[in-house]
Amino acid sequence: MSLRDEFEVIRLIQATVGKPSRRVELGIGDDAAVTLPPREKLVATVDTMVEGVHFDLSYMTARELGHKALAVNLSDIAAMGAEPLYALVSLGLKQDMQEYFIEEFYRGLKLLAKRFGVDVIGGNLVQSPQTVLVDITLIGQANSYATRAGAQPNDLIAVTGDLGSSAAGLSCLKRLGRSHLDDFRALVKAHLTPEPRVEEGAALVETGGVTAMLDISDGFARDLHHICEQSKVGALIEEAKLPISKLTHKAAELISGNAKAWALYGGEDYELLLTLDPKRLAAAQKALKPFRRQLHVIGKILPQSKGVRLKGAKGLSVPLEPRGWNHFVRRARIKGDPDPTPL
Amino acid sequence: MSLRDEFEVIRLIQATVGKPSRRVELGIGDDAAVTLPPREKLVATVDTMVEGVHFDLSYMTARELGHKALAVNLSDIAAMGAEPLYALVSLGLKQDMQEYFIEEFYRGLKLLAKRFGVDVIGGNLVQSPQTVLVDITLIGQANSYATRAGAQPNDLIAVTGDLGSSAAGLSCLKRLGRSHLDDFRALVKAHLTPEPRVEEGAALVETGGVTAMLDISDGFARDLHHICEQSKVGALIEEAKLPISKLTHKAAELISGNAKAWALYGGEDYELLLTLDPKRLAAAQKALKPFRRQLHVIGKILPQSKGVRLKGAKGLSVPLEPRGWNHFVRRARIKGDPDPTPL
Repeated sequence: MSLRDEFEVIRLIQATVGKPSRRVELGIGDDAAVTLPPREKLVATVDTMVEGVHFDLSYMTARELGHKALAVNLSDIAAMGAEPLYALVSLGLKQDMQEYFIEEFYRGLKLLAKRFGVDVIGGNLVQSPQTVLVDITLIGQANSYATRAGAQPNDLIAVTGDLGSSAAGLSCLKRLGRSHLDDFRALVKAHLTPEPRVEEGAALVETGGVTAMLDISDGFARDLHHICEQSKVGALIEEAKLPISKLTHKAAELISGNAKAWALYGGEDYELLLTLDPKRLAAAQKALKPFRRQLHVIGKILPQSKGVRLKGAKGLSVPLEPRGWNHFVRRARIKGDPDPTPL
Repeated sequence: MSLRDEFEVIRLIQATVGKPSRRVELGIGDDAAVTLPPREKLVATVDTMVEGVHFDLSYMTARELGHKALAVNLSDIAAMGAEPLYALVSLGLKQDMQEYFIEEFYRGLKLLAKRFGVDVIGGNLVQSPQTVLVDITLIGQANSYATRAGAQPNDLIAVTGDLGSSAAGLSCLKRLGRSHLDDFRALVKAHLTPEPRVEEGAALVETGGVTAMLDISDGFARDLHHICEQSKVGALIEEAKLPISKLTHKAAELISGNAKAWALYGGEDYELLLTLDPKRLAAAQKALKPFRRQLHVIGKILPQSKGVRLKGAKGLSVPLEPRGWNHFVRRARIKGDPDPTPL
């Protein structure tokens, strides 16, 4: 790439992400970006996505990748109950990739950024000979926020939406191919372009009733274990209360999938998983009303000695293992796809 | 990796980077980090390093990689004249890499972070089957800062230290192998563990005389073109004034390298390249005294119509092409290694 080409790519990115808001003094194109500081506490998170590990370009477009890469970071900000402000975007591309890919990637990212009032203030473009990489840092702000470490025995356990849709969508994509999926579009969308629950997270924290919260990325069971480990508590989940959509059940039937496994271990749902002071349940439910979103109470926190358990249809409970996405297991699968063999 | 192993790796990283300063409320291990906001404007930068493109683990240790990955980001903050505060670190590792690598990487990173008062507040660890990746975001602060866009005709052009040492070091590493390099240790160090000029950059901006500044990463010639393009000016560089160390000349002699090419096109020097109001030269020189660093004036800014030129020993000037590191040229070389063929 000549120097002229380099500047043209920078201009292409600048044009695609558009003019930043007035709080940005110096945006894309210098050694660093300069903005007004957050008025509240600074909240920062980063997430990396690697081709072949976190996404597969054989059934995902550049625009969807741009959306998802920002969405997973917005979801981390949502899990704090914070407000997102600024994004820095690193993109690693293979030699043969064209400006079209860059433009489409930034277009998808920008559409989501705009909806959540996020300025794309910087980043970089590097060569990555083997695999496409995306690494996004999101800077936000919050006065009060939720951690993973505050759950107490007797707290309620709740989620902000359906579990397993993303894993169902991924399984459909892999089994049926993208062109056959009109009936299951909502599941595919849940996997490829998830909706981060940013406003929901902030509204929930504002009620003062959230004792712990995270976003479901590695899988419900594994992420619940994260809360239990960091809060030093146990948990009991009622299987019958897990919110699984009819479409997910339909997909499971069609391709002989396991809807329950998708919901428990599939991951990539990007719904919020939270523990709640039971006295604040009504307030939390009310907080989600403006977003037409329901809070699904699916269990409660127990003392740590009780472990993490799943109560089945017959009233018997069994240990709920921390299966799910495991960042270092040798595998040939994409994140969000529950391993069919027991771990 | 089991859930227990996952927490152990997090604890290992927490232990290696140490307790953060009191401005950090929530550090490594949650969905996001929470800190006090910057008191001044927020300055943010991100840099990605990909194995085989930006570094080669056959002659670089994990500890050196940790140092360098942070150093290149500190250098971007230095180029603004800003103060670094917080780092977020993404590490992508191959399947067979052990905790030893993670610990050593973080140890190298931590040593440098501590020297510059940087808190490592978060990050993540992902699987990257083909190539090791490092992506670091650095958040800092500044009241006033230097961009690339303010150079004016008649400004002086200066650098904060030797050019070409890093390229010389890389060439030595490639030609002679690491175990034969005692004599050239300073060059190898310039390539593997460069010193970011953080305090120097801030002190220079404080003089009020810096009109444009960046850090030399892609190569002196190419980076000078970056300033000229963004400031809409030309430049004249005097070859005889380029600071090239005796050791670099000695290395060039030994391995038939070209010291001038290393200095002009090699890159990865991480010295600051700046343009200065000539009336502020004495103040700028004085500003570097506490750091025992000399400001080398090597040329001056011209109107854009004059182009970017290099004046040789015989007083004749030739166009100085923007050769240097080019993020998307097909190549089999590591960053910092000047391409022996003309571009």
